[in-house]
Amino acid sequence: MPVSALLPLLPSAAPRLKERVFRIDCELSYEVSAPTDFVFLVHALDDPEQRISGESIAFHSKVPFHVFADPTQGHRFTRVRAEAGRFTLLYRALVRKRPFARDLQAPEHPVHELPDHVLHNLAPTRYCESDHLGRAALQLFGDLPPGHPRVQAIADWIHEHIEYAIGSTGPTTTAREVFVQRAGVCRDFAHLGITFCRALNIPARLAVGYAHFDEPPPDFHAVFEAWLGGRWVLFDPTKMSQVEDLVRIASGRDAKDVAFATLFGPARMLSMNPQIEAVGRLKL
Amino acid sequence: MPVSALLPLLPSAAPRLKERVFRIDCELSYEVSAPTDFVFLVHALDDPEQRISGESIAFHSKVPFHVFADPTQGHRFTRVRAEAGRFTLLYRALVRKRPFARDLQAPEHPVHELPDHVLHNLAPTRYCESDHLGRAALQLFGDLPPGHPRVQAIADWIHEHIEYAIGSTGPTTTAREVFVQRAGVCRDFAHLGITFCRALNIPARLAVGYAHFDEPPPDFHAVFEAWLGGRWVLFDPTKMSQVEDLVRIASGRDAKDVAFATLFGPARMLSMNPQIEAVGRLKL
Amino acid sequence: MPVSALLPLLPSAAPRLKERVFRIDCELSYEVSAPTDFVFLVHALDDPEQRISGESIAFHSKVPFHVFADPTQGHRFTRVRAEAGRFTLLYRALVRKRPFARDLQAPEHPVHELPDHVLHNLAPTRYCESDHLGRAALQLFGDLPPGHPRVQAIADWIHEHIEYAIGSTGPTTTAREVFVQRAGVCRDFAHLGITFCRALNIPARLAVGYAHFDEPPPDFHAVFEAWLGGRWVLFDPTKMSQVEDLVRIASGRDAKDVAFATLFGPARMLSMNPQIEAVGRLKL
Amino acid sequence: MPVSALLPLLPSAAPRLKERVFRIDCELSYEVSAPTDFVFLVHALDDPEQRISGESIAFHSKVPFHVFADPTQGHRFTRVRAEAGRFTLLYRALVRKRPFARDLQAPEHPVHELPDHVLHNLAPTRYCESDHLGRAALQLFGDLPPGHPRVQAIADWIHEHIEYAIGSTGPTTTAREVFVQRAGVCRDFAHLGITFCRALNIPARLAVGYAHFDEPPPDFHAVFEAWLGGRWVLFDPTKMSQVEDLVRIASGRDAKDVAFATLFGPARMLSMNPQIEAVGRLKL
Repeated sequence: MPVSALLPLLPSAAPRLKERVFRIDCELSYEVSAPTDFVFLVHALDDPEQRISGESIAFHSKVPFHVFADPTQGHRFTRVRAEAGRFTLLYRALVRKRPFARDLQAPEHPVHELPDHVLHNLAPTRYCESDHLGRAALQLFGDLPPGHPRVQAIADWIHEHIEYAIGSTGPTTTAREVFVQRAGVCRDFAHLGITFCRALNIPARLAVGYAHFDEPPPDFHAVFEAWLGGRWVLFDPTKMSQVEDLVRIASGRDAKDVAFATLFGPARMLSMNPQIEAVGRLKL
Repeated sequence: MPVSALLPLLPSAAPRLKERVFRIDCELSYEVSAPTDFVFLVHALDDPEQRISGESIAFHSKVPFHVFADPTQGHRFTRVRAEAGRFTLLYRALVRKRPFARDLQAPEHPVHELPDHVLHNLAPTRYCESDHLGRAALQLFGDLPPGHPRVQAIADWIHEHIEYAIGSTGPTTTAREVFVQRAGVCRDFAHLGITFCRALNIPARLAVGYAHFDEPPPDFHAVFEAWLGGRWVLFDPTKMSQVEDLVRIASGRDAKDVAFATLFGPARMLSMNPQIEAVGRLKL
Repeated sequence: MPVSALLPLLPSAAPRLKERVFRIDCELSYEVSAPTDFVFLVHALDDPEQRISGESIAFHSKVPFHVFADPTQGHRFTRVRAEAGRFTLLYRALVRKRPFARDLQAPEHPVHELPDHVLHNLAPTRYCESDHLGRAALQLFGDLPPGHPRVQAIADWIHEHIEYAIGSTGPTTTAREVFVQRAGVCRDFAHLGITFCRALNIPARLAVGYAHFDEPPPDFHAVFEAWLGGRWVLFDPTKMSQVEDLVRIASGRDAKDVAFATLFGPARMLSMNPQIEAVGRLKL
Repeated sequence: MPVSALLPLLPSAAPRLKERVFRIDCELSYEVSAPTDFVFLVHALDDPEQRISGESIAFHSKVPFHVFADPTQGHRFTRVRAEAGRFTLLYRALVRKRPFARDLQAPEHPVHELPDHVLHNLAPTRYCESDHLGRAALQLFGDLPPGHPRVQAIADWIHEHIEYAIGSTGPTTTAREVFVQRAGVCRDFAHLGITFCRALNIPARLAVGYAHFDEPPPDFHAVFEAWLGGRWVLFDPTKMSQVEDLVRIASGRDAKDVAFATLFGPARMLSMNPQIEAVGRLKL
């Protein structure tokens, strides 16, 4: 690792009671055949729910890069222009997560009680055509009592009816297609959850991050959040992860907002290896 | 009616025991702004299940026309070229229908036992993308015991989940879209039934004809047929008609095969009035 | 107009040299059958390019309402909950617009030179599937020299190939469908322009506002903007408006961001009448 | 080859003047994991344009099979039920093809002059949504003089605008999608040609068969036919084959009618090797 020194990832401060600490180690590798612009979204989010104790980003070739934050959500994009050749990104972080107390009685809110800043999470987006799935959502979930259990029922329905099948979907697959073909991967599951929620006037958005799971190869994980009881609540319709342990990178309206890498140029991914490890609940 | 004399529609022969007799009176009217080729499909089918006792076709302007039969199914198309102006077709028929004894225990047949001539009714078509709805069909109906009750369950599911909504679909709407948007009219209901059947390897096709129903304005009706117990069995997922009383015009793979009118030229429908009347079960 | 007094719309200050002044008078009327939440986007944008000299908003029934601004773009949404009955919004404004000097030599910028805040305008959105139209955009416009003339060529191509046909599209129609069917209305034209630009790595977005045109009934207008020469430049592929005279309401990624009205509840539009009138270039 | 003896493929009769003779040798191999029904379409068509001098079909396991002919087109399907295990089909034929004299002045026919039996080749089908591409076809080809050169222009346009890219499409890809994404393989090229023709009221259909080409791996080939000058005329928009040398298997409305293999059961193709060899123009 010749270029930018990776920081030693020692906790900068003693974690608070009941915090969980995770170590992130993410390597992305590309074969670049001509100068290519990358916009990466790999930094763990630094916000009151999860604090970055230390982090570093480095590239396997001496390139200038630039980090900027989304003005409303705060997640951080990294822009970098790679020359032809092999190109590797390395990101490491130590993250302290607050425990999340899930309120199983959290209510839905009528539209007129929603805060201004979540209203746009009711609109259809590229991957989540809630305008097409209105009647289907009402049929499936319209008679359930509103609130956390209804959104949980959405996640459960998806888990039961959508087959987790790597390769069944691609970068243009939308929730409507997933609803029809009944197969997809984690982001498709999440998109369908978002779509059903919005169709029921429940604000919903995508959350992406680092998650640990046993079986599939290491990958970024995508789940969805619904606005319940005055805050965002996570749901994982794949049931592959403990959503409480997701180290969040970003949240957005759908995967177009929060792709982990966007490429402008002829490059091909060689490998991805986003590792996460729980380093224990540090004691006082 | 200046041109071709309409036949007097008297039963040409005494109906057999338990036959039902129907009188068809169908008028279609168009405003034609430049010479337009029409291919009509309005003749009642003449086959062992229903016999034509008498019929006539006429046009409100002196035009040559030409009738030809589909080489495999036998339904009759009428080709006619209309000049600019108002253009009206009048079709009348007297039809004797044999009673259809529905066998509620009729079995499905495994693919290797299907006769050659129904095999093509397993393939997806323009309006019936059974290749997209395979998993959904299996989820909904895959665990039901095969046979007539399963196809009835398909018709019932459609009746319960698809809203009958005039104007909700158009000439390009497919079963996949109807499955998503959960609304349509009779032919959409039928297309979805066909699609589910084919996805389950049950040969299915569209049947169109004259039907009596109370509420909607007079229109041609579309239902679907499934191959059960070695013959075609009708199902009407709209539950608006007595399928046994459908005076069949034609059957085809989907509505593209059996549109009641196909136009080549600038013409606009002014009115359609396909009437059917039961004239009683004639006694010996 | 019983409730909130409409402001007298007199210019609050002498306009600057070469400014154009427009008077907006917009009335939207609905039949509401049960309590319905509306989110309107009718306020003219107040920014350095166009200044609000005076404005008022009022409703034909005594309802509380709430105005909030988009945190990054500044356009103002109005939230209001209407009870059953007739419901009418009246918005008036007097707007001073700075002249816009169009630079016909404005260049495109390579991705690595784009500012952070326009990067997201390269991504596909609900209505603008630039991920599907990449090859088509390259075929049509890839060989043209980059810069303002290329984006003008996009607008010209759309004008030439897409038929302006009211009723040919609906609220779910996307740019991909418009590209296939070759018909649409102003927002479809704009969405297709945005889509081609993004497919060529030119940031693009939708601009909506008040525009004067002769033939179609009064309506909000939608055009598109491309990032050229370091700023947003307007194009109107319908060629129905003078884009320089558009009184902007908002800009967004596509029409989902900037619908003039979003409804949650059973209401039906009775009439819309967004009027704009040039009140002259006030002299010093 | 233990089971059914392959016929010695010697010309059964002296070929007529200018006939071309081709030897077909086609092997298809599958891994079958549970009993699977196959419907193969590999027999060369036996009709006045091409005569079968000798042929044989055999399977690498002792299975009963059944051959039946399409009632209107005459192509022959082979039905066979394979047990679990490796399953191989071998088809060999010797085919004499008449020379096809292409008439570059062949006219299109107005709809009212089309024979009854080609009318259905004007309708949209599963893969050829000519109802969606009407305006596009008119824009691209509507101003060209009708006849053979216009259909050649369609084939040329496709060759120029659609990238031949193996893997860019799949079994559900339609002509509309190919028109948007501008990539596909031979059958996609043919489907788009059919779609444009039908949108212009030129009857068109798919022809599949054995063709020799240099670069891609051996595969069945698909081209399209248009009804010109009172007969079907072949066009290959891929320009990979000499269409005159295509040994036809079948023609159909689109690939759903004439798939070389349709499977009902869990089987996976291991290899396909449809070979064709010109054995010379036999002299008298």
